[in-house]
Amino acid sequence: MDPKLSLIYMISFFSVTIAFAFAVFLLVWVKKQKNENKKIQEVSALIKAGANTFMKKEYKVLAIFAGVAAVIIFILLPVPVWKGDIVDNISITIAFIAGTVLSAIAGKIGIIVATSANSRAAEAAQKGIKPAFLIAFRGGAVMGLAVVGFSLLGVCAVLWVVGDATILLGFSFGASSLALFAKAGGGIFTKTADISADLTGKVELGIPEDDPRNPAVIADNVGDNVGDVAGMGADLFDSNVAAMTAALVIAQTLDTSTPVNTAMVFCYAALGLISSILGIATARIGKNGNPTRALNASTYVTTGIFIVLTAFSTYFFNGFEWRIWGASTIGLLVGVIIGITTNYFTDDSKPIVRKVAKASNSGSAFTILSGISYGFISALPAMIGIAVSALAAYQLCDPLGEGYAMFGISMAAVGMLSIVGMIISNDAYGPIVDNARGLAEMGNLGEDTVRIADELDSAGNTVKAVTKGFAIGAAGLTVIALLGAYMAEVNVALKEAGKALLTGFDIMNPTVFFGVLIGAAIPAVFSAMLMLGVDKNAQRMVAEIHRQFKEIIGLKEGREGVKPDYDRCIEIATRGALKELIPAGLMAIVATLAVGFIGGVSAIGGFLLGNIVSGLLLALFMSNAGGLWDNAKKYVESGNEGGKGSEAHKAAVVGDTVGDPFKDTAGPSINTQITVVSLVASLMSTIFVAFSIF
Amino acid sequence: MDPKLSLIYMISFFSVTIAFAFAVFLLVWVKKQKNENKKIQEVSALIKAGANTFMKKEYKVLAIFAGVAAVIIFILLPVPVWKGDIVDNISITIAFIAGTVLSAIAGKIGIIVATSANSRAAEAAQKGIKPAFLIAFRGGAVMGLAVVGFSLLGVCAVLWVVGDATILLGFSFGASSLALFAKAGGGIFTKTADISADLTGKVELGIPEDDPRNPAVIADNVGDNVGDVAGMGADLFDSNVAAMTAALVIAQTLDTSTPVNTAMVFCYAALGLISSILGIATARIGKNGNPTRALNASTYVTTGIFIVLTAFSTYFFNGFEWRIWGASTIGLLVGVIIGITTNYFTDDSKPIVRKVAKASNSGSAFTILSGISYGFISALPAMIGIAVSALAAYQLCDPLGEGYAMFGISMAAVGMLSIVGMIISNDAYGPIVDNARGLAEMGNLGEDTVRIADELDSAGNTVKAVTKGFAIGAAGLTVIALLGAYMAEVNVALKEAGKALLTGFDIMNPTVFFGVLIGAAIPAVFSAMLMLGVDKNAQRMVAEIHRQFKEIIGLKEGREGVKPDYDRCIEIATRGALKELIPAGLMAIVATLAVGFIGGVSAIGGFLLGNIVSGLLLALFMSNAGGLWDNAKKYVESGNEGGKGSEAHKAAVVGDTVGDPFKDTAGPSINTQITVVSLVASLMSTIFVAFSIF
Repeated sequence: MDPKLSLIYMISFFSVTIAFAFAVFLLVWVKKQKNENKKIQEVSALIKAGANTFMKKEYKVLAIFAGVAAVIIFILLPVPVWKGDIVDNISITIAFIAGTVLSAIAGKIGIIVATSANSRAAEAAQKGIKPAFLIAFRGGAVMGLAVVGFSLLGVCAVLWVVGDATILLGFSFGASSLALFAKAGGGIFTKTADISADLTGKVELGIPEDDPRNPAVIADNVGDNVGDVAGMGADLFDSNVAAMTAALVIAQTLDTSTPVNTAMVFCYAALGLISSILGIATARIGKNGNPTRALNASTYVTTGIFIVLTAFSTYFFNGFEWRIWGASTIGLLVGVIIGITTNYFTDDSKPIVRKVAKASNSGSAFTILSGISYGFISALPAMIGIAVSALAAYQLCDPLGEGYAMFGISMAAVGMLSIVGMIISNDAYGPIVDNARGLAEMGNLGEDTVRIADELDSAGNTVKAVTKGFAIGAAGLTVIALLGAYMAEVNVALKEAGKALLTGFDIMNPTVFFGVLIGAAIPAVFSAMLMLGVDKNAQRMVAEIHRQFKEIIGLKEGREGVKPDYDRCIEIATRGALKELIPAGLMAIVATLAVGFIGGVSAIGGFLLGNIVSGLLLALFMSNAGGLWDNAKKYVESGNEGGKGSEAHKAAVVGDTVGDPFKDTAGPSINTQITVVSLVASLMSTIFVAFSIF
Repeated sequence: MDPKLSLIYMISFFSVTIAFAFAVFLLVWVKKQKNENKKIQEVSALIKAGANTFMKKEYKVLAIFAGVAAVIIFILLPVPVWKGDIVDNISITIAFIAGTVLSAIAGKIGIIVATSANSRAAEAAQKGIKPAFLIAFRGGAVMGLAVVGFSLLGVCAVLWVVGDATILLGFSFGASSLALFAKAGGGIFTKTADISADLTGKVELGIPEDDPRNPAVIADNVGDNVGDVAGMGADLFDSNVAAMTAALVIAQTLDTSTPVNTAMVFCYAALGLISSILGIATARIGKNGNPTRALNASTYVTTGIFIVLTAFSTYFFNGFEWRIWGASTIGLLVGVIIGITTNYFTDDSKPIVRKVAKASNSGSAFTILSGISYGFISALPAMIGIAVSALAAYQLCDPLGEGYAMFGISMAAVGMLSIVGMIISNDAYGPIVDNARGLAEMGNLGEDTVRIADELDSAGNTVKAVTKGFAIGAAGLTVIALLGAYMAEVNVALKEAGKALLTGFDIMNPTVFFGVLIGAAIPAVFSAMLMLGVDKNAQRMVAEIHRQFKEIIGLKEGREGVKPDYDRCIEIATRGALKELIPAGLMAIVATLAVGFIGGVSAIGGFLLGNIVSGLLLALFMSNAGGLWDNAKKYVESGNEGGKGSEAHKAAVVGDTVGDPFKDTAGPSINTQITVVSLVASLMSTIFVAFSIF
């Protein structure tokens, strides 16, 4: 093996080891924190049990799916088993399974730490914001380190063992398909519970959020874990793996003599992990400090460290190109800019949220209309950001030689995702403090503690909107790079089949255009199916809650010793989520196959483009509109526009309810849908070349 | 001139003459119908006056805009005046002005006939459904014939006089830009009034629709005319002109020796007009017949006649190709199929509307979520339809030679729009019976008459959803053809500049990709701006209505002789619409110019693609979701899910309010936005070639 590449592999494995060691340290630290309140322990145990039950059932369904998929992959990929070398088929099947398993483990670790950190953060909030913040943040960081560690480890190991990036596509596909279903399942679960709890509790009965009388309250807290922690972790695991995979597939087409570009990909990824570790280790807030500022500050610290470290490595390693460093830096900076503009549309100290809150005075129709409108507008800056960074990376790297332009774009994606460890830490912080708030309320820790928990929760919401914008931006660049990877794969297949190579996908070619139109419709249908899943499921759960309030005597009045049947609600959410999680994802995959078999590789090129473009647009729209409505409701609840109980508040709650599946089910799942479709296309390219109708 | 072309020109002018004569006959017939009820005359006069005031003010604003645009066009197009032949600049400027003027006249004629037919249809409804239907339908037909007549006349005249299709782009741009602003202005006016009237009347006070106590009721009826009649007329005038223009621009690149294809375009357009005349002339319903069936039947009759007539012409005229006839027939049939699938999603006898009505039982958030979801899904069949028809037309005509494939697509668009005379008749029928219903209510014509008017109105709504799907489909094919026209124009410009010609727009080219991403965001921002316009404006009007109910003593109680101040409401709607109609359209045009000057002709190619794809998706989504909510509300109001006054009804009203600007302001305006952007791109191609940065 090339000595430089060997060194970089060592650095990568070394940084993974440090990340794991640090994660274990943080986990032990979190576990050591005080957890003595009986009431909290009790509720926390319910949440943990609910989350574990759901995860177990979900993973069982996914295992069946993965098993079936593995068989199909073994038979067909990279070429039908009766045609090619069976070793390749075995390799790609193992890689696929490894991808699903690592993704599942990362999610599981997230659940373990989040369900431990929530109760400890609640207790610590009695002593002030500082210790509570640290517990929640470090809990999130365990998840962040695990996800990034596993993704780097997996990618390194696969490439190290087999040396062929096509096999890596199998690994990435495993990670993505698990993420697709985990995100969908978790997203449906969490929003079913959230919406039902809000509608029956807050709106109908006027009892506070997290009131223990509400039968859906535990399910709601379970949802935070399985949707926002496990689902999100699988999602970012998938994005990170896909970004590296795209870069490596393209790098292998460039590295004819020395694997310098391959080394560069790993080096940057490893340095991103190290930067995240440093950023996490230095995160602190002052005694009465602002948690939002603390989270953002550590993101900026990580960004800075990454840029400096990669500059050093580029300077020291012979063959690392400055232009590629430039592309990676552009990607990262644009990611930060997308985050900031997203914040403008979803932060309640900014005018947009206030306008939507004001419109709510005229009724819920105006809340919805203004939210949808600003949601649409909010997509523009991010779309421009992605477009400009792709164009800049391309132009910057094009002079390096053929194929380098697309490599530049893929490195911009790697750059944007380099700080993903930090991003996940911030993101997982959110559901932990959300849970902590619920526990503080249910454990009767007093008003002051709930207020502190509220403050932490609100920071979580603000940061979440930013990290979501970031994740969507990164997915955008990644799938553009995957489009490049797809073309590289297609040309390999065409060459082997002795056919003319593709130079690109021309819009004026009607087969391409055909693909574009259908590809563009898929994210809309996909997100609609998920939302309908939530819709149906929530209706079932609302009926169950109504039944309990009617049949369990003394429950509504809060009579001592009377408890709702929490488990029934968890069961409904679980059953519904498991039923609804497969069809949407399967539809996207089947549509890809249908277009590929009908229109061939050109139609798929167009299909991917249409899918990416409309997917990004809808994902940005839905995530931002959802965040906007959520914060508009919070803004009203904090005493503006008439405050709680006013007409504006009722309207804002409707907005928030619509926004919930937008931002936590459909919007972020679209990311994964795009990635999965891109990977299916790349993997199937040989088959499409051989078997398509047109 | 080529003798065949001369003959076809004669046929075209002849069919235009017949259309005008028939329109005059129908207008006289409508005017001759009984109009004796004093109360109705009084209210009808108010509506007419309101509509005329708005149109006058709107046309004044648009005249200023058109004047400024004409100066810019004169200076810059087709090439800067200091560089090229000034005669060309004068020609294109005159063509542009002619386009705006003819479009404006078509709208004005629609207003004249609609405000006459409404009161007469209301009176006729006393005698039964049959005479009322005929008056409303024939009133609509006057508009249909005028629009198609003027568009064919304009296109024929421009090409006959100057002989150069590039000048025709100027005419088409004039028609489109007027349509863009007329649709936006009318759409904002009508929905401002509609939403405000519903919210304050139906929801807050519980008084019926069209109750004369409601200060917004006249404005609401004015809105039907200025938005749904004049705006829609301008919109379809524009689509029809654009489809012919695209076909003619491409035909001219093919017709090197004989102008046979040019002749074919005119021949088909003229036969479409004749088919519409025959369809209109034979439209009838039985004494107690079903108006929906009558409207649909005449559409099918027109379709059949067109297919047969064009087959004859193709058989008899030497050089008319059967393959092109096939493309045109495919376009028309796919248009009908799109209409039928749209109907599935918006008809209350079908399951989707009922599901949304059922979901409303759980609250308005579920009405919104399910409506948005089904709206997204409803886009899929139409997207597939457009994709398949484009692909089929291309494949069918490709063997005819270079460039014929794109000509085939443009002829599919011409085919789809061939029956546009019939479509407009059906479409304009809607607001006329809507008005008639209001007049019957306000004129105290009795319950039976209102019921008949209601039945006519409901048919109007159902048919409207179908014609809208049709219009969007046609716009889709037209803009694909315009993309072809754009490339033809670009290559002319590149050739003159001595640069390498374009062979297409490659997705893998980052400049193209850059354009795609930004182009895709524009329809979202455009529709958001329009919806925010309605939102703001309606809030102002609701405040005014509240003021009137508070300050005008006896109004709420309906005391004899106490009248609201209708004019203030009309004024608010007018002022708001005029203020909001320019920015959104201007934004789309400026974005096109910005992308063109930055990224050049390749970026614009991508920009058009992104714009078309996301525009179609959003237009279909918004139109269908809006129609779905409207009919779900009507379904509940007719006694289902608890009927009027139930919780489900309240939720359904929220859905309808959100859907109003979706389906009548933003959705259908996107059509025009796409067309305008495509035409700007074609017109500016020479300038972009000369002055872009990249």
